[in-house]
Amino acid sequence: MSQRRVLSIQSHVAFGYVGGKAAAFPLQCLGYDVDLVNTVNFSNHSGYGRLGGRKTSTEELESIFQAMESNELLDPSRLLTGYIPNADALNAIKKLAEKLRKQNPNLIYLLDPVMGDAGKLYVSADVIPVYQSMLPLSTVITPNWFEVETLTSTQLTSLPSLRHALTILHTQYHVPHIAISSIPLKPWLAQSLPASIRPPEASESAHLLCITSSLIHSKSDSDDRHENGSSELSLVHAQCVPLIAGYFSGVGDLFSALVLAHYHPSQSFPSPSSPSPSPTPYENPNPTPHSEPTHSYKDTTPLTTAVSLSLSKTHQVLLRTFSHSESLPESERLGTDDEKDGNEPIRKVRRMKGRELRLVQSIDVIRGEPKRQKLGHDGDENEEEEGVVQMRELVRWDEFWSQKP
Amino acid sequence: MSQRRVLSIQSHVAFGYVGGKAAAFPLQCLGYDVDLVNTVNFSNHSGYGRLGGRKTSTEELESIFQAMESNELLDPSRLLTGYIPNADALNAIKKLAEKLRKQNPNLIYLLDPVMGDAGKLYVSADVIPVYQSMLPLSTVITPNWFEVETLTSTQLTSLPSLRHALTILHTQYHVPHIAISSIPLKPWLAQSLPASIRPPEASESAHLLCITSSLIHSKSDSDDRHENGSSELSLVHAQCVPLIAGYFSGVGDLFSALVLAHYHPSQSFPSPSSPSPSPTPYENPNPTPHSEPTHSYKDTTPLTTAVSLSLSKTHQVLLRTFSHSESLPESERLGTDDEKDGNEPIRKVRRMKGRELRLVQSIDVIRGEPKRQKLGHDGDENEEEEGVVQMRELVRWDEFWSQKP
Repeated sequence: MSQRRVLSIQSHVAFGYVGGKAAAFPLQCLGYDVDLVNTVNFSNHSGYGRLGGRKTSTEELESIFQAMESNELLDPSRLLTGYIPNADALNAIKKLAEKLRKQNPNLIYLLDPVMGDAGKLYVSADVIPVYQSMLPLSTVITPNWFEVETLTSTQLTSLPSLRHALTILHTQYHVPHIAISSIPLKPWLAQSLPASIRPPEASESAHLLCITSSLIHSKSDSDDRHENGSSELSLVHAQCVPLIAGYFSGVGDLFSALVLAHYHPSQSFPSPSSPSPSPTPYENPNPTPHSEPTHSYKDTTPLTTAVSLSLSKTHQVLLRTFSHSESLPESERLGTDDEKDGNEPIRKVRRMKGRELRLVQSIDVIRGEPKRQKLGHDGDENEEEEGVVQMRELVRWDEFWSQKP
Repeated sequence: MSQRRVLSIQSHVAFGYVGGKAAAFPLQCLGYDVDLVNTVNFSNHSGYGRLGGRKTSTEELESIFQAMESNELLDPSRLLTGYIPNADALNAIKKLAEKLRKQNPNLIYLLDPVMGDAGKLYVSADVIPVYQSMLPLSTVITPNWFEVETLTSTQLTSLPSLRHALTILHTQYHVPHIAISSIPLKPWLAQSLPASIRPPEASESAHLLCITSSLIHSKSDSDDRHENGSSELSLVHAQCVPLIAGYFSGVGDLFSALVLAHYHPSQSFPSPSSPSPSPTPYENPNPTPHSEPTHSYKDTTPLTTAVSLSLSKTHQVLLRTFSHSESLPESERLGTDDEKDGNEPIRKVRRMKGRELRLVQSIDVIRGEPKRQKLGHDGDENEEEEGVVQMRELVRWDEFWSQKP
């Protein structure tokens, strides 16, 4: 098995930064060799409204996987899957993921179940059951709010419904680690948050929430969990980040790639019950969650460390992208207006182009160490000390499983 | 026009580093946004002997270019073309290059006419006339020795034949800048070199030569060149680098990408006759060569600066790759043996895999500033001061056009 090698399977666009184009550069900057399998070959992302190129056929994907296998090139330490355009291709990738998981139980698989956003599916509905069947293969999943709802058939409208959805993901689908970012901060959700991260009521809607949940009990002993005297299924952490106005593509793809890059199971979150035989700094994953966390494990976990870093860096890249888009001539930063966009498609195109991630210009952010300090909720949103990324550290949501809604 | 944006059109491989995979990361690390159009989508490079995936059809390439054009995404400041599998696709790319050149006379176009190596074509012969017809569009070309022979229909066997070939490229095909690397140091060539860079006779075969040639006269006044009292058609520079044993793929692609990244016409080689109206550090190309160089221009030119940096960095990446391949278990570093390879294809596959460029691990080399110091020809080949890249500076070959063979 190669050290620090990621197999990334997602979309390719010639221009701009979504899918593999948003993932490869950050992963490479952080020291990973990245094998790139392109599920589509497009001119640009679909948000532009028109594009050229084509989807990769399932036959072609299988031909690539087959050749990689016979050439002994299928040995990543990590797997990253993102946008896959249809159930047929997804099934081919599922078979591959099963093979990789079988051949390497320590494989770290970050599965981003890219299906839709804000209430709308943008893939065919027959991918849903395939993604559900793939969840047990994953180490970390990074669905958005709508994808959590879709995977669990649960409308997220209250704390109990959120607990129900996480329970389904952890117990029915055996997902060890979940990271959900860019969650709109509805009042019921804001009111449930730990006081230390809850934004002032007046600015709730100006924030997005990020939640992580790591299963406490290993899959095999999930029935015994009450014997610990704990009613907690998972460790839940959360943090808010200021909302940046406008729609930017590729943000989730960047976030997922960074989470995968920064996730180092053996570093700060050893499993007391199963010490690693030969720990290396980066590649001794232990996908089975620890069975009896002591308090010191609760404040930060390998997942929260990875997600805090990724959240901080993604936010900073987005801030730079926003600043850049604001600096463009007016014709390149036209606001969203569906009616005008319909009459004049180039409006939308120019807006999209002006909002492509400033990824290459953020190599310092990607490679840097964010500065740890307490952040207030106001005033700091658009301040950027040159070259300094503010660490947005996730905090433990102690009462998540027990508090009253 | 976007600042620092490269449109790169070449091959894509899922695993390893050739074509776009060898070019994109270095260009991005050096601050360029890179638009990536894939001329093939393969599992790995063809040197492995077997591969999966397919070539991109010309129809698909045209669909991508068409969408990019209508979405106003065809505005690179630089163009890089590499491996293009057939004349049909090459014609589509020629049309694109013509359009880009017309729309931006300052476009910096690095054309790598990838056709073959060591006496063998690995593309269909009908690409040759298409490449010849594209040469006048280029700013810099980076053919290898065999490609120079192919483009000029000239066997390179003597200094006069080399002068003849460069004359054809500069005057018949109007190429302003030529950089030829990895030239086997035949005795006739070694004997012609300036004394300062000529390796000791005993170690000639342990070196490769790099030559650059920049046209002195602008295209329009090439007929007047003798009026200057100069018999020189171009400024020629050269340097030797130690040969590293074994065949490594993607080296030329990396070199070309670095040359493009480091080529900054307006920085140190201003054209006295046409001062730039608004010089910016990186993007004020002046592809028309200067007409009357003073002596100070001769020692270093924008091309020699770019090529010296690229040669130094490529050599260092190759040294690391070689060291890495030597550190592998014996089964992964089997020497070339055509008979054994034929009986047991996995031998070749493993050798190729073990020799993939250590690109991601060389981010310090790619982004760093090589150390300027005199290099001897012996003893220093495999020494690498941690993090320090030795600058291999090209030197002026003063007598190139006048010396007796």
